[in-house]
Amino acid sequence: MSDLSAVLDRADQNLPAAIERLFDLVRIKSISTDPAFKADCRKAAEWLVEDLKTLGFDASVRDTAGHPMVVAHHAGATAYAPHVLFYGHYDVQPVDPIELWEDDPFDPKIKEISAGRKVLTGRGTADDKGQLMTFVEACRAYKEINGSLPIRVTILFEGEEESGSPSLKPFLEANADELKADYALVCDTGMWDTDTPAIAAALRGLVGEEITITAADRDLHSGLYGGAAANPIHILTTLIAGLRDETGRITLEGFYEGVEETPENIKQSWETLGRSAENFLGEIGLSVPAGEKGRSVLELTWARPTCEVNGIWGGYTGDGFKTVIAAKASAKISFRLVGTQDPQKIRDSFRAYVRSKIPADCSVEFHEHGGSPAIQLSYDSPALTKAKNALSDEWVKPAVVIGMGGSIPIVGDFQKMLGMDSLLVGFGLNDDRIHSPNEKYDLKSYHKGIRSWARIIAALAV
Amino acid sequence: MSDLSAVLDRADQNLPAAIERLFDLVRIKSISTDPAFKADCRKAAEWLVEDLKTLGFDASVRDTAGHPMVVAHHAGATAYAPHVLFYGHYDVQPVDPIELWEDDPFDPKIKEISAGRKVLTGRGTADDKGQLMTFVEACRAYKEINGSLPIRVTILFEGEEESGSPSLKPFLEANADELKADYALVCDTGMWDTDTPAIAAALRGLVGEEITITAADRDLHSGLYGGAAANPIHILTTLIAGLRDETGRITLEGFYEGVEETPENIKQSWETLGRSAENFLGEIGLSVPAGEKGRSVLELTWARPTCEVNGIWGGYTGDGFKTVIAAKASAKISFRLVGTQDPQKIRDSFRAYVRSKIPADCSVEFHEHGGSPAIQLSYDSPALTKAKNALSDEWVKPAVVIGMGGSIPIVGDFQKMLGMDSLLVGFGLNDDRIHSPNEKYDLKSYHKGIRSWARIIAALAV
Repeated sequence: MSDLSAVLDRADQNLPAAIERLFDLVRIKSISTDPAFKADCRKAAEWLVEDLKTLGFDASVRDTAGHPMVVAHHAGATAYAPHVLFYGHYDVQPVDPIELWEDDPFDPKIKEISAGRKVLTGRGTADDKGQLMTFVEACRAYKEINGSLPIRVTILFEGEEESGSPSLKPFLEANADELKADYALVCDTGMWDTDTPAIAAALRGLVGEEITITAADRDLHSGLYGGAAANPIHILTTLIAGLRDETGRITLEGFYEGVEETPENIKQSWETLGRSAENFLGEIGLSVPAGEKGRSVLELTWARPTCEVNGIWGGYTGDGFKTVIAAKASAKISFRLVGTQDPQKIRDSFRAYVRSKIPADCSVEFHEHGGSPAIQLSYDSPALTKAKNALSDEWVKPAVVIGMGGSIPIVGDFQKMLGMDSLLVGFGLNDDRIHSPNEKYDLKSYHKGIRSWARIIAALAV
Repeated sequence: MSDLSAVLDRADQNLPAAIERLFDLVRIKSISTDPAFKADCRKAAEWLVEDLKTLGFDASVRDTAGHPMVVAHHAGATAYAPHVLFYGHYDVQPVDPIELWEDDPFDPKIKEISAGRKVLTGRGTADDKGQLMTFVEACRAYKEINGSLPIRVTILFEGEEESGSPSLKPFLEANADELKADYALVCDTGMWDTDTPAIAAALRGLVGEEITITAADRDLHSGLYGGAAANPIHILTTLIAGLRDETGRITLEGFYEGVEETPENIKQSWETLGRSAENFLGEIGLSVPAGEKGRSVLELTWARPTCEVNGIWGGYTGDGFKTVIAAKASAKISFRLVGTQDPQKIRDSFRAYVRSKIPADCSVEFHEHGGSPAIQLSYDSPALTKAKNALSDEWVKPAVVIGMGGSIPIVGDFQKMLGMDSLLVGFGLNDDRIHSPNEKYDLKSYHKGIRSWARIIAALAV
């Protein structure tokens, strides 16, 4: 029996105890956004430190201005073994509306939800306690069989992911030498579907802007002034309409700088996933792809930049009618970025465009709402290829390299602050109801997640 | 001394008593929108009936489903004398916010607000009790001097003008034969300025529409769906932007049917009024005329149709940012109409345009918010010319024939239901604060208003 087979067998044998350990962690109410649970957050960090110590990690709770970090180090088989930083978060979302939960969110259970499909229920089972424990349990199986790990492992668990990670950047900055590794492993993403493992290689970035256009110095009666006075809603709607041309391309100057076409082989692998416009959009009551013409919905949501108006308001919006010309009109607008698009350049180009559309007697105010570049990992790096093969072996189905429409800020921070790419592997499913009542994590996700990490660790070692 | 000179002298002599009579009427709290003042509204109607009876009118309080009407008839010098219907309203606006009033709104006073400028204060002094009493007092002076009126006069005072006149149309319909006259005199408008009398000959009509565009069947995360799912705010802003071309013209099919150019002599008279874009827009913090290019602000607001977005909303509009793609987006849009533009055709054209811009998988709902055609009175009818000359004589300054940006629905009702044009003469001033705390009516407006009607009555008789 090879080492790996023995490790995988041990992971299987450990599963009942691994579930109990996860349940112990889930029972700790580590809701980071609510100050009432501050002590629980620390308790979760301490629980993790204690557990990692039993595996021979040099682990400690590290204070921050907010909830503490957990940092743990484990030597590899040799001093030259690859070094990974594993990231997860022990904090969880609030549980409101509590009345919609079938069970106490902090009293986890194993439930059979359909023939042969068992799930682990409770807040944080999927996001992210169950996911981070897949890695910890893989390490445990290794340690129990081999007495050591084949690679050097640093672990970083944060407790503020669900509240915007305010302490993360300062912590990375202050501890860069300690945390820097060859690459990061992040377990906070999902499978493609219940049978198909996935690695996320492209995460779109984001630029958020809020604009408020002011015309007259007061609200006007449209009978008295209509036709002569500037209406800020017209200015706003006209400039928003001008952000896109009739083919769906964004018209901002320089917007497509840094946007590369997706490699043909990747596009082809996406085509095999069977996500047609009909089924993707059909689920939300739509059928016609919006945005750039002539591209698949996966390309549009994973590999192409966008401009979306997320909110708009101005004038009278109550019941009935008021013939008012408003003094002000506002919109919240965001851009999803891909490739190497520069958030600051996009913001500057947007603001220059808006200013060019404001009449001389009107004005505009801008508010910045965040900006982060896209993450574009190499589709064929050695680590990604190894992980892909390991996942394909475990799930007996080729792993797919996918994009993600949204951003995971930590990945950008690792890249920017520690010069380190991330490998995003996770076992969540679309129906896990993260952030919602009745969160669950499939028992299969947990079990095969543990086995997947054992295989990936083995693959990365060679 | 001519008849008219004697009548004018009598009006001067009567002024102190005329003020007292107006104050008696102002003291009656005839707020039509508040059911608590239902009895006061009837009291005002009864007060007017009693007063008109003293002038020999056959006057009566006429019940409606709401507040009562006052109808009164007076014979003319001959059975063939011209017959006019004089319209005014005895109801007033609520007084909130009461704490901003310097005096009790229902305890009218004479105040000197600057050297030589006296005003009558109180709710309704200008809108419309003071204005309607100018006509009643002119009749009184005539009766006292001549024992008769030179023209046949029917009076209609309503008590629901400030609450949308729900009983007016049924009343006109039920009493058409009784109320039909050669034309109507309406005293509910204003002077051009403190020295310049004005007759309103063009009132813009209105079409109000509310649209709600629905795309997906729920709010979406812009990371997951952005770029592929339709965003109703984009659809809405694009279709709104398309309502106007770059010259400011409205692009709806057939929109300009029935829109005539204003006669050159009228445009020239408007140019003498000194209302430049700078001073008109300067008062509200603007300087650049919006809307159709190459037209004066008076033309734009009096004689040209418009399309204005009065309200717009969709998506996340609170503090901070939410990367949502909304399921719905809405706007309230109104069109001001001129000439013989047909409200129903405009509404149909608008809806057809909107439907043409809605993607196949999205939908739109329409809500109608009122529609009334424009009123365009002849700029050179005999009655208007006579009234203009009479006003010019009284104020020793040429009366101007003006447009009004807003609508006065009663004028359309008279035209449509009784086949009768209206002559709109009023003595209000821009600073009368109608509908606001500290409403007032200039003593000069009242005094010279009475004298103006005496002159107009004399002029209309010949």
